[in-house]
Amino acid sequence: MVTQKIRKDDYVLLYLSQRKTYMVKVEKGKTFHTHKGFIKFDDLIGKEYGSRVLSSLGVEFVALKPLLRDYIMKSVRKTQITYPKDTALIVMFSGIGPGSRVVEAGTGTGALTTALAHYVKPHGKVYSYEIREEFLKTAKKNLKRAGLIDLVELKNKDVTAGIDEIDVDTIILDLATPWLVVPHAYTALRPCGTLVSFSPTIDQVVKTVEALKESSFVDIKTVECLMRRMQTERGKTRPQTLMTGHTGYITFARKAMKPEA
Amino acid sequence: MVTQKIRKDDYVLLYLSQRKTYMVKVEKGKTFHTHKGFIKFDDLIGKEYGSRVLSSLGVEFVALKPLLRDYIMKSVRKTQITYPKDTALIVMFSGIGPGSRVVEAGTGTGALTTALAHYVKPHGKVYSYEIREEFLKTAKKNLKRAGLIDLVELKNKDVTAGIDEIDVDTIILDLATPWLVVPHAYTALRPCGTLVSFSPTIDQVVKTVEALKESSFVDIKTVECLMRRMQTERGKTRPQTLMTGHTGYITFARKAMKPEA
Amino acid sequence: MVTQKIRKDDYVLLYLSQRKTYMVKVEKGKTFHTHKGFIKFDDLIGKEYGSRVLSSLGVEFVALKPLLRDYIMKSVRKTQITYPKDTALIVMFSGIGPGSRVVEAGTGTGALTTALAHYVKPHGKVYSYEIREEFLKTAKKNLKRAGLIDLVELKNKDVTAGIDEIDVDTIILDLATPWLVVPHAYTALRPCGTLVSFSPTIDQVVKTVEALKESSFVDIKTVECLMRRMQTERGKTRPQTLMTGHTGYITFARKAMKPEA
Amino acid sequence: MVTQKIRKDDYVLLYLSQRKTYMVKVEKGKTFHTHKGFIKFDDLIGKEYGSRVLSSLGVEFVALKPLLRDYIMKSVRKTQITYPKDTALIVMFSGIGPGSRVVEAGTGTGALTTALAHYVKPHGKVYSYEIREEFLKTAKKNLKRAGLIDLVELKNKDVTAGIDEIDVDTIILDLATPWLVVPHAYTALRPCGTLVSFSPTIDQVVKTVEALKESSFVDIKTVECLMRRMQTERGKTRPQTLMTGHTGYITFARKAMKPEA
Repeated sequence: MVTQKIRKDDYVLLYLSQRKTYMVKVEKGKTFHTHKGFIKFDDLIGKEYGSRVLSSLGVEFVALKPLLRDYIMKSVRKTQITYPKDTALIVMFSGIGPGSRVVEAGTGTGALTTALAHYVKPHGKVYSYEIREEFLKTAKKNLKRAGLIDLVELKNKDVTAGIDEIDVDTIILDLATPWLVVPHAYTALRPCGTLVSFSPTIDQVVKTVEALKESSFVDIKTVECLMRRMQTERGKTRPQTLMTGHTGYITFARKAMKPEA
Repeated sequence: MVTQKIRKDDYVLLYLSQRKTYMVKVEKGKTFHTHKGFIKFDDLIGKEYGSRVLSSLGVEFVALKPLLRDYIMKSVRKTQITYPKDTALIVMFSGIGPGSRVVEAGTGTGALTTALAHYVKPHGKVYSYEIREEFLKTAKKNLKRAGLIDLVELKNKDVTAGIDEIDVDTIILDLATPWLVVPHAYTALRPCGTLVSFSPTIDQVVKTVEALKESSFVDIKTVECLMRRMQTERGKTRPQTLMTGHTGYITFARKAMKPEA
Repeated sequence: MVTQKIRKDDYVLLYLSQRKTYMVKVEKGKTFHTHKGFIKFDDLIGKEYGSRVLSSLGVEFVALKPLLRDYIMKSVRKTQITYPKDTALIVMFSGIGPGSRVVEAGTGTGALTTALAHYVKPHGKVYSYEIREEFLKTAKKNLKRAGLIDLVELKNKDVTAGIDEIDVDTIILDLATPWLVVPHAYTALRPCGTLVSFSPTIDQVVKTVEALKESSFVDIKTVECLMRRMQTERGKTRPQTLMTGHTGYITFARKAMKPEA
Repeated sequence: MVTQKIRKDDYVLLYLSQRKTYMVKVEKGKTFHTHKGFIKFDDLIGKEYGSRVLSSLGVEFVALKPLLRDYIMKSVRKTQITYPKDTALIVMFSGIGPGSRVVEAGTGTGALTTALAHYVKPHGKVYSYEIREEFLKTAKKNLKRAGLIDLVELKNKDVTAGIDEIDVDTIILDLATPWLVVPHAYTALRPCGTLVSFSPTIDQVVKTVEALKESSFVDIKTVECLMRRMQTERGKTRPQTLMTGHTGYITFARKAMKPEA
């Protein structure tokens, strides 16, 4: 079996339990402290990914290689991030895949950007608009950490004033006034290109759907997704007590040609 | 603006309304009949994708370029297919992306296979196991239609008897007895590789989770996803009356090294 | 054990399966025909409630005494009825019980009226407004069948023009424009009286909540309720595939005194 | 308009906001302290229910007359209580109403008992079994506070050993092992009597459904109910972020006669 060793400066997900995981950078000579004891990074270096390691208090952690979902959930946040359940649907509805050219607005701290960049590898591109410069700095950090920064062009620009790119495959909107971007999106998209908008309130959805109808988009649909965890144990199986009741609505549309005059 | 023309033998999604779309192959000289009149394929050839065309009865259709989701929903079915909401989560949880090597079982008629192949482009591979030969034939047809057959190796084999591949990134299970595959999956996965299992019943989930715990998998979690459509129209906005109440549970896990003896 | 015998002209619920039940009136000399054979009513008369009876084709039915929920679900309908899950919450939120005086609008065909009358027995009263006379006729029939007509005063009047009663305990609104009734409801309610409104669309809810705030109501809250059936069988346990995705939103409020000028 | 005055020793619900309400006993000479200032009870006595009163810090409270739901939510708890959404469905499914005779087990601290007693007024009776004596003391206190103690017979007995009553209309089970009570319930119920069982885990449901089938119950069904709050405000309307994901499953059945041998 081919194994992969943990190297200096790798990001590692230290797994303690379903509720407790830590994303750490394995810095030589340093020590990671938890309430369950400490772990010396030098002890991790050279170990195989997936290894079980003991803390100074004898508690077992598993040293996992981070997945896309970990980079999203553990991203440095200054804003509400898009959750994996919504990210998954946004990606699926958009139709993107390896090689796609995507415009995103706004970047926020880059959680959704990370997912988009992951799926357009190796030759696609994500153009991501954000007006708040401090968010872009955090997004850059998160994208670097996930090894995806080369696939993204971060743009400190107001997307409601226009989109620079043309013939893009999809436009992903996660900002307060998506309806103001819809006409620009129409211009920027290739024919049959898709638009996906994520909004927490019904009022945003209604305005966006109206703008999409006016701009010759078709196949417009809005969904919401509820994800519930199950506690699975023979004799005690049940859904979990608390769940996220709402994150946002996802609206999808495709660009059609304008009707001939 | 770069446009893309409809060519002979393309698959086109003819969009009439949210409820009525048709996936057609544009065969020279042939005609497509609907209850809203007919469309001659020769009239489509050379038109731009996204064009609005009129049927013989003057009803407007939009000629759309199919997306991944369309290939899934319009796949030739002989079994229950995995719905896009579940496919989206399975893909996200698995952590796969361009270049991933994936084992899937069972293939069914290839709906989920289509999605997996799409996301591992251009250099990844999907090894898909299915014991019912007639399903594999349909799956092959569906994958060809979506232009993804080269990324998939269809295997007419019983996955509960073993997995040929090693060091794969993820294993996706959508079959009646996933717990029987778990030990083989452990052997076939690279360290930190992921397993995602989709099952309609609680009983399947409980057995699979128990098998995962026995086989040194960690970060085991089970979720279900409810997706609800919104009817969005100013003054009439409301969730839709009918929804799919249940498709299946999605169980996720990661391979950890076995504890030292 | 005290038993209760089926008498001539009783309403009986013939139970075949979870999916097939029939509400019948046991008329002397008559026969009830189903796709599973016929049952002579004379054979039912004198039998104990809960008895198992065989049809002419030897298929077993159980002769059940109808419950409130059966009268609701089997009411003669000309409109969409309020479903038991919503009726249950409306009753609970309203705070009504034996002896309560209730105003309802609109009556429709009396499904919700039936429940309200049931719970205010034996000394309460339901005043139910409806502008469409043909609906009142059906409602009357349904209430008679359930033995609850004496508790209800059916009023062929437009509730948006005013409410005749005063000092009522609760007002239940299930009509297209509940916000137009809110000021009348404030006048008709006793202090701390409750108002419960049921509406399918978000737009109705927003307008109603605004009217409630303007009319010195407090403790205003809106909920929706999703009920899902489980298929319970060892080894095959799972939620059912189809469910009702939406019926309506339930808004609740309590009358407070107006602030002193 | 008839008004009702607050009297000494009444229970009053002081309403500050959707999130903050206080159930208080208006004791002469005493003072109620909150983080928004204090309220002297002597200032409440003689005021009309529904009045707005100012705290010492000038913050407005509304003095509401408690409803059934308030007595449930504000009951003194030592155990997990049954939530109003579930209570509402249990009551509706059971078919109880004024005059019904009900057996309940276990009492817990009397939240569900309070609701059952409320709906069987004025001539019905609730026989409530509980093995833990300290719970019964709290239940007694809660039922007295709600003015419903005369309708309830609290029994410090193990219901799995048998039920004393016969010919009861319904049996409500909210205990760890409902399946052990099913045979006793069959004996205690009148023909066509109902049984409703509330359980958090799937495993409890499966065992209970099996016991019901063995004991000649019919029309067995299991549901779960998800209730979600809406935040309703023009321009900001959306479901609330957090919700209760699971409380328990509700199983319903009716007693049929045993098949003849």
